[in-house]
Amino acid sequence: MPDSPLRVVQYGLGPIGQAVTRTVRAKPDALTLVGAIDIAPDKVGRDVADVAGMDQETGIQVSDDPDTVLADTDPDVVLHTTTSFLDDVAQQLERCARAGSHVISSTEELSFPHERAPETASRIDQVAREEGIVIVGTGVNPGYAMDTLPLAVTGGCTEVKAIRVERVVDAGARRAPLQKKVGAGLSVEAFEEKAAGGTIGHVGLRESLQMVADGLGWPVDRIEEDLHPVTAETPVDTGVRSVAAGEVAGIHQTAIGIVAGASRLSLDLKMYVGAEASSDAVEVDASPPIDLRVHGGVFGDTATVGMLVNTVPLAAAAAPGLRTMAELPVPRAFATRPSTASAATF
Amino acid sequence: MPDSPLRVVQYGLGPIGQAVTRTVRAKPDALTLVGAIDIAPDKVGRDVADVAGMDQETGIQVSDDPDTVLADTDPDVVLHTTTSFLDDVAQQLERCARAGSHVISSTEELSFPHERAPETASRIDQVAREEGIVIVGTGVNPGYAMDTLPLAVTGGCTEVKAIRVERVVDAGARRAPLQKKVGAGLSVEAFEEKAAGGTIGHVGLRESLQMVADGLGWPVDRIEEDLHPVTAETPVDTGVRSVAAGEVAGIHQTAIGIVAGASRLSLDLKMYVGAEASSDAVEVDASPPIDLRVHGGVFGDTATVGMLVNTVPLAAAAAPGLRTMAELPVPRAFATRPSTASAATF
Repeated sequence: MPDSPLRVVQYGLGPIGQAVTRTVRAKPDALTLVGAIDIAPDKVGRDVADVAGMDQETGIQVSDDPDTVLADTDPDVVLHTTTSFLDDVAQQLERCARAGSHVISSTEELSFPHERAPETASRIDQVAREEGIVIVGTGVNPGYAMDTLPLAVTGGCTEVKAIRVERVVDAGARRAPLQKKVGAGLSVEAFEEKAAGGTIGHVGLRESLQMVADGLGWPVDRIEEDLHPVTAETPVDTGVRSVAAGEVAGIHQTAIGIVAGASRLSLDLKMYVGAEASSDAVEVDASPPIDLRVHGGVFGDTATVGMLVNTVPLAAAAAPGLRTMAELPVPRAFATRPSTASAATF
Repeated sequence: MPDSPLRVVQYGLGPIGQAVTRTVRAKPDALTLVGAIDIAPDKVGRDVADVAGMDQETGIQVSDDPDTVLADTDPDVVLHTTTSFLDDVAQQLERCARAGSHVISSTEELSFPHERAPETASRIDQVAREEGIVIVGTGVNPGYAMDTLPLAVTGGCTEVKAIRVERVVDAGARRAPLQKKVGAGLSVEAFEEKAAGGTIGHVGLRESLQMVADGLGWPVDRIEEDLHPVTAETPVDTGVRSVAAGEVAGIHQTAIGIVAGASRLSLDLKMYVGAEASSDAVEVDASPPIDLRVHGGVFGDTATVGMLVNTVPLAAAAAPGLRTMAELPVPRAFATRPSTASAATF
């Protein structure tokens, strides 16, 4: 842990950003919240505690003016949770970097931007190096469950022939925006229309696959991506959305990496309301073979927050530049030192 | 992958060292074997291919003179597999470091030496920094299954209350020295005598616990260690050793970390012949909770070799000094690029 708390600005106050804010405030020995940025008119000007659902006022007002917040607060780290797409956030990232702050971002396309947007990635890397700071994209997926963890699963393997990663997410247990993101409640026709327009589905599967391939040093001939609706067999009410039988419950999305002429990397993601159980699985056809399961899965809403916050000390200690999770030390929980008051459970 | 193959000396040619040697030779694009060291009179002077069970002669004779081998071959990396104890290898490590070579070692006590032998660790670190090289201890256990992997499992957790790691190893499927190490075939009395003398059991459980605690930033009040024999209920013949009913089949060894007054870290290791199935499990009492299982376990003989070889590029790119696996990037398979000739399996 750093010697004195790192100064943190929260950039983006959607559900994930709000949870990150609460987590930052819950770790006062390690992190000090010094600023909060969001453009939503119903959030600007309010105490961030009020926006993020915290009991105690912080004295920090949400601002829609990043330059002023960054200049006034001089943060060590910006925790950045605005949107999924690199083009939309590139300027935001550069602005934070120019203020001399590390940036840990949930922007999915930033997790491995080198293939999709090599020029943008190169420019961001250049700015980060010039300013002596680290920029990294992370989260539960992309950032962990379907890339960093599968890579770590191969840690003891000498011959790897193929890797298969499967993640099943019961979207009904997740935050409302995710239920919307997977199309829960749409007709199949509406889903297909959105899918054709690229406005539905999970962002980052391609990035995860590329991070795994890059980490292994495997050149990818091509990536085959597919997106289908999962339809509800029986009605589902998540408390947030109601889905009738036959309507879309969510997505089944796949990315297959063709390496040396064969399908050797498979990422298979199902996120839908009414899923029987969430789970994560990584199977490695290798020496030794590995068959790893996370029963109940890695719960995304919480783990995305965890990945963002836990990456702070790893990024702050890394060599400057645009980094991926595969370049940082093994991720691990940060600032969870138990007090004698807390109960242990075994 | 490095641009040109790294020059490797193999130091120690027991079963693990032999397997490492074969693996190095199987990765000619990435690694070049340039020397081999062992003190066993029946190995010295023979071609290392002959000692390690490879078909093709290498032209490299096994030498019992490390200084000459290191001086003559000028290796980038020494893969070091001699013994478990730091005091026995400290001079070997320093000798390699002074020759300007990184050292990846299977010495169990080296995996996290800072608590058991802070002065030795400090001296080795100093030498490594002076020479601009990295020294790291790794393997499947310690080095992966009960420390690096459990740490990585907490990557998305925000509140961690306790971690429980359980590893079950069917020793009958493992190499002969491991079967001996766990006491298979001993009487309970003989086992207890050896246990009292500290000459039986797994080395490294304490180090694994300390690596996890250190990675989390948890101060450990004390560690409670225990070692018991597992006795065979029915006779077991592994092909290497015969164990009668009532004789020792192997070990049940535990290390409990007391943190903030409570048992919060539990490492539980069973290694015995006749175990129904090998397995690894990591349970994290946290937000989110994690219940991870590796069905069939991470097979140790192969994965130790994998960890040693896979750590080479990570260590070679790290900042000089004595490192632990928790300080290096996420471990992943190295130099496994498939050829079009090899079959994929899904």
